[in-house]
Amino acid sequence: MTDTNDIEITAYDWVPDMARGKVKDMRVRWALNEIGLPYRQRLVGNAGGEKAPDHIADQPFGQVPIYKEGDLTLFESGAILLHIGEKDERLLPRDPVARARTIAWMFAALNSVEPFLQALFLIDLRGSGQAWHGPAKENLRPFAENRLRQLSAALGEREWLEDRFTLGDLLMIDILRTNSQQDLVRAHDNLAAYVERGTSRPAFKSALAAQMAAFEEREPT
Amino acid sequence: MTDTNDIEITAYDWVPDMARGKVKDMRVRWALNEIGLPYRQRLVGNAGGEKAPDHIADQPFGQVPIYKEGDLTLFESGAILLHIGEKDERLLPRDPVARARTIAWMFAALNSVEPFLQALFLIDLRGSGQAWHGPAKENLRPFAENRLRQLSAALGEREWLEDRFTLGDLLMIDILRTNSQQDLVRAHDNLAAYVERGTSRPAFKSALAAQMAAFEEREPT
Repeated sequence: MTDTNDIEITAYDWVPDMARGKVKDMRVRWALNEIGLPYRQRLVGNAGGEKAPDHIADQPFGQVPIYKEGDLTLFESGAILLHIGEKDERLLPRDPVARARTIAWMFAALNSVEPFLQALFLIDLRGSGQAWHGPAKENLRPFAENRLRQLSAALGEREWLEDRFTLGDLLMIDILRTNSQQDLVRAHDNLAAYVERGTSRPAFKSALAAQMAAFEEREPT
Repeated sequence: MTDTNDIEITAYDWVPDMARGKVKDMRVRWALNEIGLPYRQRLVGNAGGEKAPDHIADQPFGQVPIYKEGDLTLFESGAILLHIGEKDERLLPRDPVARARTIAWMFAALNSVEPFLQALFLIDLRGSGQAWHGPAKENLRPFAENRLRQLSAALGEREWLEDRFTLGDLLMIDILRTNSQQDLVRAHDNLAAYVERGTSRPAFKSALAAQMAAFEEREPT
């Protein structure tokens, strides 16, 4: 891999209004901004149909972001964040215990919290207006509620999940703020305040502005 | 952290028959066996009700495995595997590109593949015999099918996801073999063969024997 000024991230050139500011390149932009690393963006089409073969070659699931740096092509926002974290201890502590705990929270966000919220999103997406929607959601909601209750208990009165802001917080906050079940998140005052704390960071705000600007670029065409 | 002979993993002393051989300490045992690292196991209760407070203090979601090594207490099997991988390039390549790609597949297993299968498991778990079960499953199944189709295409005719066995394969195979939607996995010959290839490894077989033995220990009581 070559110097860190050669970072490219791939983002969509268009998404529906409801998804703007929530696409997963946000978390990568945010992390890069936290440590002041510049990057280029490459915008790719998203509207309808199959993804282009070169997109699938870089990202097996046809999603964004794709991260390129020298001879590395990387997918999965969790892996991209961890790779960026290795560059700067402000994102990923160098102390071995603190480092491992940061990574634990990253996996917790992606595997112990998000999937239960995402299941409800899929039920809303496919079931809206259908008879099965209500009971399916009622039956699966307790799993998500339980995980958020456990997360709220783990956070307690602290500012961040461990003793300082890390990639674990960045990723957890991005999942809490972007998921479609905001009522479940807001049921916990400390989680709502935690999201507010994270999204008040200047690096988050500039990431949001950059993602929104990318969509606006395309508008006039 | 201290020497690597001081590793403790926490497993359940009992689970229902259908879960035996599939609890998540399996993947950690498997990884440790791949590199010949000894460990102690600590068995904890699982039957009914809330987890003990000291369990929650170590594992915010009340699950297993918990990994202890010196002054490190770690949760999330993905994070535990990555921590173990840092010890030995047989699990996690040292080459920076190969390392990052390995980590990408670990996150892919836990965030791009498992959640869509798990949503179907939750629907089965809560909906069996109820009117909403069929339509809910029918509507959410295509998401899981799509991810497995994409995974199958990415694997193609290769033996492993990259050019050699890594933690990415270990975790992906453990998720493919343990999830409740085996018909969806077996719909792809190359995925079925991939699972077979992984679970034929001696390190997997000894891990399975160790998990099963832990359950049998408790049986007479």
